[in-house]
Amino acid sequence: MTNTQVTHIQIDNYGPWTVTPEPRREVDLQTLQSRLFADLSQLFGNRDGYVFFSRFDNMIAVSNGLDLDDHRLIQESVGNRYPVTMSLSVATGTSPVQALGDATSQLQEEGSAQDKHRREILKGRTIDDEFRTADDVQIAHFDVNDATGKYTDQLNEFDTFIHIEQGYAELMRYMRQAHDSLCFFVGGDNVIGVCPDLDEADYQDAVDHVHEAVDVDLKVGVGRGRTAQSAGMDAKHALEDCRAAGTDVELLF
Amino acid sequence: MTNTQVTHIQIDNYGPWTVTPEPRREVDLQTLQSRLFADLSQLFGNRDGYVFFSRFDNMIAVSNGLDLDDHRLIQESVGNRYPVTMSLSVATGTSPVQALGDATSQLQEEGSAQDKHRREILKGRTIDDEFRTADDVQIAHFDVNDATGKYTDQLNEFDTFIHIEQGYAELMRYMRQAHDSLCFFVGGDNVIGVCPDLDEADYQDAVDHVHEAVDVDLKVGVGRGRTAQSAGMDAKHALEDCRAAGTDVELLF
Amino acid sequence: MTNTQVTHIQIDNYGPWTVTPEPRREVDLQTLQSRLFADLSQLFGNRDGYVFFSRFDNMIAVSNGLDLDDHRLIQESVGNRYPVTMSLSVATGTSPVQALGDATSQLQEEGSAQDKHRREILKGRTIDDEFRTADDVQIAHFDVNDATGKYTDQLNEFDTFIHIEQGYAELMRYMRQAHDSLCFFVGGDNVIGVCPDLDEADYQDAVDHVHEAVDVDLKVGVGRGRTAQSAGMDAKHALEDCRAAGTDVELLF
Amino acid sequence: MTNTQVTHIQIDNYGPWTVTPEPRREVDLQTLQSRLFADLSQLFGNRDGYVFFSRFDNMIAVSNGLDLDDHRLIQESVGNRYPVTMSLSVATGTSPVQALGDATSQLQEEGSAQDKHRREILKGRTIDDEFRTADDVQIAHFDVNDATGKYTDQLNEFDTFIHIEQGYAELMRYMRQAHDSLCFFVGGDNVIGVCPDLDEADYQDAVDHVHEAVDVDLKVGVGRGRTAQSAGMDAKHALEDCRAAGTDVELLF
Repeated sequence: MTNTQVTHIQIDNYGPWTVTPEPRREVDLQTLQSRLFADLSQLFGNRDGYVFFSRFDNMIAVSNGLDLDDHRLIQESVGNRYPVTMSLSVATGTSPVQALGDATSQLQEEGSAQDKHRREILKGRTIDDEFRTADDVQIAHFDVNDATGKYTDQLNEFDTFIHIEQGYAELMRYMRQAHDSLCFFVGGDNVIGVCPDLDEADYQDAVDHVHEAVDVDLKVGVGRGRTAQSAGMDAKHALEDCRAAGTDVELLF
Repeated sequence: MTNTQVTHIQIDNYGPWTVTPEPRREVDLQTLQSRLFADLSQLFGNRDGYVFFSRFDNMIAVSNGLDLDDHRLIQESVGNRYPVTMSLSVATGTSPVQALGDATSQLQEEGSAQDKHRREILKGRTIDDEFRTADDVQIAHFDVNDATGKYTDQLNEFDTFIHIEQGYAELMRYMRQAHDSLCFFVGGDNVIGVCPDLDEADYQDAVDHVHEAVDVDLKVGVGRGRTAQSAGMDAKHALEDCRAAGTDVELLF
Repeated sequence: MTNTQVTHIQIDNYGPWTVTPEPRREVDLQTLQSRLFADLSQLFGNRDGYVFFSRFDNMIAVSNGLDLDDHRLIQESVGNRYPVTMSLSVATGTSPVQALGDATSQLQEEGSAQDKHRREILKGRTIDDEFRTADDVQIAHFDVNDATGKYTDQLNEFDTFIHIEQGYAELMRYMRQAHDSLCFFVGGDNVIGVCPDLDEADYQDAVDHVHEAVDVDLKVGVGRGRTAQSAGMDAKHALEDCRAAGTDVELLF
Repeated sequence: MTNTQVTHIQIDNYGPWTVTPEPRREVDLQTLQSRLFADLSQLFGNRDGYVFFSRFDNMIAVSNGLDLDDHRLIQESVGNRYPVTMSLSVATGTSPVQALGDATSQLQEEGSAQDKHRREILKGRTIDDEFRTADDVQIAHFDVNDATGKYTDQLNEFDTFIHIEQGYAELMRYMRQAHDSLCFFVGGDNVIGVCPDLDEADYQDAVDHVHEAVDVDLKVGVGRGRTAQSAGMDAKHALEDCRAAGTDVELLF
């Protein structure tokens, strides 16, 4: 059984800030957002968590192994170094979607994302060390078969991007609806999924579905671990196994 | 008539690097990618260009105002500070899609994105100063109507993300096919389009199409300028006009 | 008794790299160095350590609380994200100077700082958890009395800088020779000292010496802790006590 | 004749901010300061200027080639991305010390560095393009003879640092008093000097003085140019000439 700990990260009142008193230069907003994500990647990552940029003003982390003090330190460090602050809400569960749902609800109870008085909320519960297991996190690492040969080296870059993006849009929706998973594009032709206790047939089903729906061919390696980092590294090795063996799905557990 | 100068940015042989000799830690890759994008945002942005992260290993810039020496400096600066290098290819045209197509083709002629001997290519032509005009760049800034009230404050964050993402996937595909435009998600509920000489009816058509196809309600402000920065800033002000007037489309030119 | 764990951080073969094949642009080197230091500040700091930039190509960390695995992760993360690699050597002792001496010697045994084949060395021993105590680290935080009123708001900025710098040069030398301490300028008018088990009279002696030698008036707050972070935060509070009480030396233990 | 354009950069009301409401974590301050400097290095550097970190809360730039609009953009970009703002004051002159003196005075007239109502000042005059020449900037690049062989590979790192630091402290003071120059430590064993129209004998005098005063042996390459970047790159090549020829001083003009 998985027990995923999910953190919903929300920049406080960000939309209004970007246009106050006048719209701010887009390149500065892009720089701010991507550096904040880079910092969070390191702050969570150095404690073996994963962060996904999703919408940048709202990010989602798999935070197994971080307690509330770790979250508080991350929140304080960002507050010390950025012109914006962020709220954090943590929840856990066997279904990543359910855990995220709980985390988001806790945050919504405190007020709107654009409430100017709601700042630096820190809520939720983390998994006590004694209840953590080596099966808590299941990570799937998808990529597109021969993306370089079929797309990058053939099409104009935007058409390549459209193919990858349509594949991702279909996968994220299907995995959420059919398999209670959270899938995130992470660059190139790669998508990382945070999954409940799925088996090989579930992953094959997802690969088949995307092939049929939008004609994009995926493969996927899957790992399990106590943290996102260990599960994710196993998933990467499993994906290398797919590449070596020419298979669609490899599970390294 | 627009005359968009587009730069295709490609990290050299990036895929193989990420798994050599072993798969590298995902959090480090995420940090590397997002910081490289942040740096490029500043490097192009301080010369009034825009960069979009698209796939991170391949990025797309609107580079009106930058000549080849500027590109060379950016390439050298990245080479001095990152463990990877990048190739740059520039082309221009009345259609952003066509310009990008030319830029990508020039790069593909030099070898595969995963050719380990093809490094730091710099190709293409920029627009001579004497031919640059105040109509060269047309930028459209889209956002989702009441995204905070309808999605962020109501749904779990992943379902909000799915709505935004499906709206974006539909918009990017439609604008490319019907209107020769390049649209990029830039965070939150915002999409920026790089467009040829479109008029109000074209934008209304796109807004209507997305509403019908995936039930996501957009509005859009449009600006024109000599550079992405000036066109983009006008687009932001036009979007504020939409917000104030409750309209779907505002053109500030 | 203090038991300071000191890490000597050395960029591998950095000097030659900066001029190969041609001298690299100074602004890129400055950016690289200061960002690497910023990253190390976070990487050590998020484990409650302190890093000092000293010469930038060689940096010194107080690393109580980090074991060799933590060091290995930091080394790998930098190797994944920078065009240069670094070697790390750790040693411990009641005297910070002696600990650093041991750390440096271990590194020198492996070859020259400019040996192109000596890369990513990781050597030394850290303090086992069972032997760590709340007195292990003693941190002193010095600043210049009324630096803003006497210097910044009166002199040209370089002459202010000369005053601060001469005060620092004298303090660093004296504290090393007379008190086995490592003192580092950390910006503004602030110097942080990593000290053995010194008492109030020792600090008063240092303040008096700098006053007599170069006519710069210092005050100092001192803290103790299990880590650099806890000792350093107490030192900051002690310095606030100096400010409030008008005293030269305050010890918060 | 040189005509150096100097910009005094001052973080507004920084000291009080670092301790409000409580002292902020030192590692976050170090990260903030060094990243701000890295950003300024790029922002000035991409317009061929140089920035020196000096005290970090006050920095000094050689800004020939940047006009007030460039300064305004840099100020705005920092304000958009950091929790602090900065003031900029520019002045020019044949003596870098005098130019900096004027820049600092202009800033002091607007209020104290710790005046909480004095924010984002932008003052001064830049050199009109028609008056700029290829002799405007003279840059000297000093380093320590065989620093790796004599210090880094022999002494403990702090004692090496003390040697370098004492050499720098003496050089900066002497060059300011005897030769109206601004010298800055830039890492490793390197010091960069911003000089008026000095000749070979002046540089030999400085090298001799430091040798006699503190027994540190320097060499120096000197370049001239329209911008700091071109003068500085020539200085680096001149320093390579010293290395090849075994000389103390080389001028590349």
